[in-house]
Amino acid sequence: MSDSKKAPAVDQITLAPVVDDLCRGASGTTSTPGGRVTLPSREAVIKIVEDLRAVLFPGYFGTSDLHDESLHYFVGATLARAMRSLEEQIRRGVAFTERHDVDTCSHCFEAAQAVTKSFLGLLPEIRRLVHSDVEAAYEGDPALRSRDEAIFAYPGMFAVTNQRLAHALHVLGVPLIPRIITEYAHTLTGIDIHPGARIGEKLFIDHGTGVVVGETSIIGKNVRIYQGVTLGAKSFPLDEHGNPIKGIDRHPIVEDDVVIYAGATILGRITIGKGSSIGGNVWLMKSVPPGSRVTQAEASEQRFAFGAGI
Amino acid sequence: MSDSKKAPAVDQITLAPVVDDLCRGASGTTSTPGGRVTLPSREAVIKIVEDLRAVLFPGYFGTSDLHDESLHYFVGATLARAMRSLEEQIRRGVAFTERHDVDTCSHCFEAAQAVTKSFLGLLPEIRRLVHSDVEAAYEGDPALRSRDEAIFAYPGMFAVTNQRLAHALHVLGVPLIPRIITEYAHTLTGIDIHPGARIGEKLFIDHGTGVVVGETSIIGKNVRIYQGVTLGAKSFPLDEHGNPIKGIDRHPIVEDDVVIYAGATILGRITIGKGSSIGGNVWLMKSVPPGSRVTQAEASEQRFAFGAGI
Amino acid sequence: MSDSKKAPAVDQITLAPVVDDLCRGASGTTSTPGGRVTLPSREAVIKIVEDLRAVLFPGYFGTSDLHDESLHYFVGATLARAMRSLEEQIRRGVAFTERHDVDTCSHCFEAAQAVTKSFLGLLPEIRRLVHSDVEAAYEGDPALRSRDEAIFAYPGMFAVTNQRLAHALHVLGVPLIPRIITEYAHTLTGIDIHPGARIGEKLFIDHGTGVVVGETSIIGKNVRIYQGVTLGAKSFPLDEHGNPIKGIDRHPIVEDDVVIYAGATILGRITIGKGSSIGGNVWLMKSVPPGSRVTQAEASEQRFAFGAGI
Amino acid sequence: MSDSKKAPAVDQITLAPVVDDLCRGASGTTSTPGGRVTLPSREAVIKIVEDLRAVLFPGYFGTSDLHDESLHYFVGATLARAMRSLEEQIRRGVAFTERHDVDTCSHCFEAAQAVTKSFLGLLPEIRRLVHSDVEAAYEGDPALRSRDEAIFAYPGMFAVTNQRLAHALHVLGVPLIPRIITEYAHTLTGIDIHPGARIGEKLFIDHGTGVVVGETSIIGKNVRIYQGVTLGAKSFPLDEHGNPIKGIDRHPIVEDDVVIYAGATILGRITIGKGSSIGGNVWLMKSVPPGSRVTQAEASEQRFAFGAGI
Amino acid sequence: MSDSKKAPAVDQITLAPVVDDLCRGASGTTSTPGGRVTLPSREAVIKIVEDLRAVLFPGYFGTSDLHDESLHYFVGATLARAMRSLEEQIRRGVAFTERHDVDTCSHCFEAAQAVTKSFLGLLPEIRRLVHSDVEAAYEGDPALRSRDEAIFAYPGMFAVTNQRLAHALHVLGVPLIPRIITEYAHTLTGIDIHPGARIGEKLFIDHGTGVVVGETSIIGKNVRIYQGVTLGAKSFPLDEHGNPIKGIDRHPIVEDDVVIYAGATILGRITIGKGSSIGGNVWLMKSVPPGSRVTQAEASEQRFAFGAGI
Amino acid sequence: MSDSKKAPAVDQITLAPVVDDLCRGASGTTSTPGGRVTLPSREAVIKIVEDLRAVLFPGYFGTSDLHDESLHYFVGATLARAMRSLEEQIRRGVAFTERHDVDTCSHCFEAAQAVTKSFLGLLPEIRRLVHSDVEAAYEGDPALRSRDEAIFAYPGMFAVTNQRLAHALHVLGVPLIPRIITEYAHTLTGIDIHPGARIGEKLFIDHGTGVVVGETSIIGKNVRIYQGVTLGAKSFPLDEHGNPIKGIDRHPIVEDDVVIYAGATILGRITIGKGSSIGGNVWLMKSVPPGSRVTQAEASEQRFAFGAGI
Repeated sequence: MSDSKKAPAVDQITLAPVVDDLCRGASGTTSTPGGRVTLPSREAVIKIVEDLRAVLFPGYFGTSDLHDESLHYFVGATLARAMRSLEEQIRRGVAFTERHDVDTCSHCFEAAQAVTKSFLGLLPEIRRLVHSDVEAAYEGDPALRSRDEAIFAYPGMFAVTNQRLAHALHVLGVPLIPRIITEYAHTLTGIDIHPGARIGEKLFIDHGTGVVVGETSIIGKNVRIYQGVTLGAKSFPLDEHGNPIKGIDRHPIVEDDVVIYAGATILGRITIGKGSSIGGNVWLMKSVPPGSRVTQAEASEQRFAFGAGI
Repeated sequence: MSDSKKAPAVDQITLAPVVDDLCRGASGTTSTPGGRVTLPSREAVIKIVEDLRAVLFPGYFGTSDLHDESLHYFVGATLARAMRSLEEQIRRGVAFTERHDVDTCSHCFEAAQAVTKSFLGLLPEIRRLVHSDVEAAYEGDPALRSRDEAIFAYPGMFAVTNQRLAHALHVLGVPLIPRIITEYAHTLTGIDIHPGARIGEKLFIDHGTGVVVGETSIIGKNVRIYQGVTLGAKSFPLDEHGNPIKGIDRHPIVEDDVVIYAGATILGRITIGKGSSIGGNVWLMKSVPPGSRVTQAEASEQRFAFGAGI
Repeated sequence: MSDSKKAPAVDQITLAPVVDDLCRGASGTTSTPGGRVTLPSREAVIKIVEDLRAVLFPGYFGTSDLHDESLHYFVGATLARAMRSLEEQIRRGVAFTERHDVDTCSHCFEAAQAVTKSFLGLLPEIRRLVHSDVEAAYEGDPALRSRDEAIFAYPGMFAVTNQRLAHALHVLGVPLIPRIITEYAHTLTGIDIHPGARIGEKLFIDHGTGVVVGETSIIGKNVRIYQGVTLGAKSFPLDEHGNPIKGIDRHPIVEDDVVIYAGATILGRITIGKGSSIGGNVWLMKSVPPGSRVTQAEASEQRFAFGAGI
Repeated sequence: MSDSKKAPAVDQITLAPVVDDLCRGASGTTSTPGGRVTLPSREAVIKIVEDLRAVLFPGYFGTSDLHDESLHYFVGATLARAMRSLEEQIRRGVAFTERHDVDTCSHCFEAAQAVTKSFLGLLPEIRRLVHSDVEAAYEGDPALRSRDEAIFAYPGMFAVTNQRLAHALHVLGVPLIPRIITEYAHTLTGIDIHPGARIGEKLFIDHGTGVVVGETSIIGKNVRIYQGVTLGAKSFPLDEHGNPIKGIDRHPIVEDDVVIYAGATILGRITIGKGSSIGGNVWLMKSVPPGSRVTQAEASEQRFAFGAGI
Repeated sequence: MSDSKKAPAVDQITLAPVVDDLCRGASGTTSTPGGRVTLPSREAVIKIVEDLRAVLFPGYFGTSDLHDESLHYFVGATLARAMRSLEEQIRRGVAFTERHDVDTCSHCFEAAQAVTKSFLGLLPEIRRLVHSDVEAAYEGDPALRSRDEAIFAYPGMFAVTNQRLAHALHVLGVPLIPRIITEYAHTLTGIDIHPGARIGEKLFIDHGTGVVVGETSIIGKNVRIYQGVTLGAKSFPLDEHGNPIKGIDRHPIVEDDVVIYAGATILGRITIGKGSSIGGNVWLMKSVPPGSRVTQAEASEQRFAFGAGI
Repeated sequence: MSDSKKAPAVDQITLAPVVDDLCRGASGTTSTPGGRVTLPSREAVIKIVEDLRAVLFPGYFGTSDLHDESLHYFVGATLARAMRSLEEQIRRGVAFTERHDVDTCSHCFEAAQAVTKSFLGLLPEIRRLVHSDVEAAYEGDPALRSRDEAIFAYPGMFAVTNQRLAHALHVLGVPLIPRIITEYAHTLTGIDIHPGARIGEKLFIDHGTGVVVGETSIIGKNVRIYQGVTLGAKSFPLDEHGNPIKGIDRHPIVEDDVVIYAGATILGRITIGKGSSIGGNVWLMKSVPPGSRVTQAEASEQRFAFGAGI
């Protein structure tokens, strides 16, 4: 190798046509508007969620502790910060979705104010629900020795808390942000619950990796779900252009006191009756009455010589 | 939109009652003590684990390389730092769990010292085990071209290494921290192995997303597990208050040389005999003798017109 | 607790033998060479991928927007930076794999230059493919209200984009880095697609957690895959030393217009014929002709008293 | 020290009255308006300045180098980013200064646009000036072995470049931001040049710590200034309320080719004639004609016994 | 340059003796005790100071603004956090200075609690003083167009605020931390005011670089000081070991309404009488009565040929 | 303000000509070569200096403490890391200065190795010197209550330590990096000592802001220097092109036991005889014999009416 100068691999000869190609293509498929476009910030939304977790479980995710009378200050300051940031992010979300200029869209401004105020009012109820989830974990997991551990270490608690926050925003018509909140949990826990799903109190998702709960799912009270469970849709009707028709109820209804074991796949607008138990790895596409017990067909077994592989 | 001042959406009128509500609720469900409460720091625990990984695989996760005689310095400094931090985190964990003031609890202090010293002594054996896991990956994955790649890119290696470290702490009675260590791996890999599981040498988990190995599982030598496999519990007995009775053996025993394919769900204190092979997506709740081959019941097949959906 | 000095738990008496043991072991199993060894940097590779995502979807992951004429500058600068860094990382990857000194290996230098230049030329085609994936998501998910959401929030898009970039590098013979790129997606999405897999246009992976696509898989156009699906290998032949023989075609071929539902496990070099639909949780190890519809055997159902457990 | 719980030092009894006091005071002296007030971000302004430095000296503060044809991309992208951010910060500055709501003030919006466009047009001239400063350093410092070192390591270059950028904004009437830019240099270099100062080409400030150049100073071409030099004001007239009257010319005029040595203090609207040399530690409050040489009065010397102190 | 492996420059042959030498020396000069020694954290102290600045000037350094009723929450939460952290840092400072084990020293614990509580009670008075300093800046600097600019951009404000906080801790007997606070300001502003200096209301330091105010200085009300001014000590008496005797009053007393211009050096326990004005670059070691005007001896001037140098 | 889209202020019409202008100019004045140019990294150099400070003062800037036997590990690991990084940065510095391609320049490689090895050998002597500086501070500052405070809080210690490290590299012929090291101290302390200055043991610089010590200065043992002191050059001879002739001895020689008070300016290759004392604000350009006491001419004093200004 000589000591002379080496040109870098990629110079103008090679770079320019690729840049031109990528830029030309850009105006085709996707479609952001010409003005100032500001997507909601994923980092800001995550910070909001963490702040809300801190006020829902003070002492676990903040710097305060319970009997300290500075608690009011911490909760108040954290909540005020979160609400301000939320209002800003909602404004961005509305402007982006409706292709408005975020700096000048008064409609976006007013919508964000109204929604933020409504969301604030929902927090006490969300708090009640997430604390019921802690109870459900404590009752449902023999490996859990204290409620503390559920609160700060259980992925199911994390994902369900995120979904309950996202659902409130979803119901209020906020675009994009609910999805960012549930995808944040999805990334960290492998639990993917659509913001649209309606979930009763005391939901316990154990382990949770691979759980999918679709947009129009309804889950009753006191339900237990294990890893790899899908509450999904079957095929869906298409419109005249061949695109799926959006917004139809197409996911399961799970009534109170149901347990769904690992890997079960439940598809379509069917109802799992109250108190039923769905076995692992079951593939289920029709309703079952209350108190049902559904299991996979018998596995076949056979002895074979060691080392022969499968 | 007029140029006048706009009040922010959330002001004192709306904020104060929510803050009061959230603070009032705080003293109810959860229960942190009045004094200085310091939870173990997740960030500190993760740093400890990364330092330990660096000394278990010097040259892969540190700045040193093998034939460099500065290796002793690096290993020594990294290990000393990790042990100091671990002692501090254990002290916090004990104080939190037993509701002591971490600054003044001499019992916590002494317990942390004793446990840290014991843990240090276990490291060479842990090192032997994780290196056996590297061999297992090399032998078990045709896509793997060098041991290097297993060490620094395989999620299964990552998760099993974390569990072996967490298990040693679990056996020594350390609270909370083992769980933080395995949940860290769970978040990054989707592999959820409880710190309590007892695992023999040469475990290879391939791909791994969705794998769950429960608290009282026992896994023999030279076992291979694919993604989505559950070694879980069946229903569990409740005490007189309706809470699950903790600490009963309720997860499978997997003997040496077993292979469990993707998505298999194995539940309860059953035994998978030596050399058995469990097929994908099987739902298994009874023991199988050595050399068994278990597969799902035959899938049903039918031709249908293209485009008709399922 | 007396106010006297406390010795830390771990001192020289305990530390030295463990350090010696760990260092002694180091020269055994693993094998980094004596010179300057620099592994590719995971952080640098991730930054490259994010830069490439920004030029593949300008306006979504950068600071520019589409109709802004500064777009050329942004795309050009981002691409130039990414290509420089990629060249450096490839050089490291080659040097590490072939055990050369990265600072003096002219072969590594030249290989990195050649490959980087070739990769650049492939970007327009990659761009075409990932935009076809956006279309597939829009057509395939009723819950998706705009293409925007697919681009910046869908884990399937993320993972498939990463794989398409990694695949191009894999085909060009780049070591280690393709794996880092797909493992990055695996960590964030739970979707594990090997860089070697060959994938046609318009792939849509919905939810995605637990999806595994093996090294020699071939996927046609317009395929839809749900969470927990495995395209895996059956057992594999061993060489005379008991190690698996590398590089044999051992994963499925999925033809155009196939849908594979959640949790299906498809193993071996079989072919899923064009337009087939594979039901959830199916375990499939033989080829099916075009237009097939495969479902799990009927689940067994039975009513039982509420509360009895499973 | 007993093992009992300790209350933290600061509890509600002590905290509440202090908080009340601090909040009560807040509405007195200072005066931010009721709406959304957003100060310009110091971090954003610093980033803008660093981006501008990168385009003024490409190859020294960026990632590009000169003969690379990707230079246009880098300069264009960096400049576009800086201009966008500058426009935003100016908008904030105007809104804050005039007590408008930054989100709804269309005047602020338009002013920021106009000023940013004008500033952009001034950059080539600023570039010419800062490159003349490099030459001045090379000619004026025997310790400097290459122009490179002046560009990236000389505090004088740093401070003068910042002032030239700040001055352009100051002339355009931008509030607050020019001061942030020069204070940034002041913090890092100890050189405090007011944005209002008018400075000709080829200014060289050597070492520079403690240099102060006041608001209405005028500095000609080819001037050399050493550390600790002050170009300041004498006493100033007060208005009827006893406040200083703002905006009067009150700092020195330094003509071309002047050298001012370390620690000289030059006060008031006096003129230092072309080619003069002002000695170190001089205190000067009257004009001197061209070609003057001013030095401090003779120091008095005396021998004294060693060790007696001063 | 051959393609062979190169050994790194520094290997065990060269490294070991240097390490041994450095470690051997370590036990000589300096003297940290054997137990757990934790110095106060500079980062933590800086964070405390920034939090206190935020509550002293709410709306300027926090996220709140004045008329927002969430102000109480922000001030309360910020103050509570700062006091907790301050208590911890004081505990460390006491333990380090007195060579106690920070984890077990109950004396350190109690001292930190008492001091923190006292310090909290001083904050309203400190607040009054720093707001008087803002007024002084506004009255004293014709270049200042609003009080805002003084608060967030004037180095003199920054340094004096830090000193007032440090002084309160100094008076309470806190070791090390006051010095860290003033050195933080020294680093950023070049203004070095010892925590021990006693300073009346309405101090204005303009520009400030190079200002030094010694430990036993006393400064009255309404004093103005320019850059480069020293209030220092003359020679000091030594004890029988030749070490300086600590704690003697040895710095100037500056009475009310004094102005000291740039670069003046005032040494020893002398008094500058009320209303005096000390000219720039003066060297002064004896007291002057009220109303004095002191200036440097006349500078000598002479014309000389241009270009001849000095 | 209408709700319509607003174009950003800076678009292609305005941006393109400025970019072209800036790029065109780039090839003129400055001169980086065409190949891969990598300047030494300021961040890396700072990290090296901090690591060296940690091994020079173990227990103050590291995580270890003195009586801990893990000290050897910490010192060894820190030193090994610093030496590796230093070698890399020197290689970059040589390549940049000599306009070589850093990746292929074997001369740069070998030079960096040789110099790094030599520098390592100088560390014990540097250690001895900086510890002598601690003693000098303790003996010279009545405000200093422990050596600890000098080590971790005194800007003079910081700056002199940096200079002693930089000087060793300067003597070894390393380009650029010594300057980065001293400028780092200059930025943080306002003390600017050229790497070329030769400094004896026990130097104490108190406060230090504004101190300048020129390239060819020689400072003896046990010297004390206060803030604002300059050891500078007078005018310098020019070559036939009008550029200053580099490398001539042009700064003062300060013999042992000299004290130089605040603001003194000492210029030219003069000698301050052993044991002399130079008063504050003196302007001195001729040698003084041993034992001299030099002070500024008498200041003139006069009483004047309060409030009349100066």
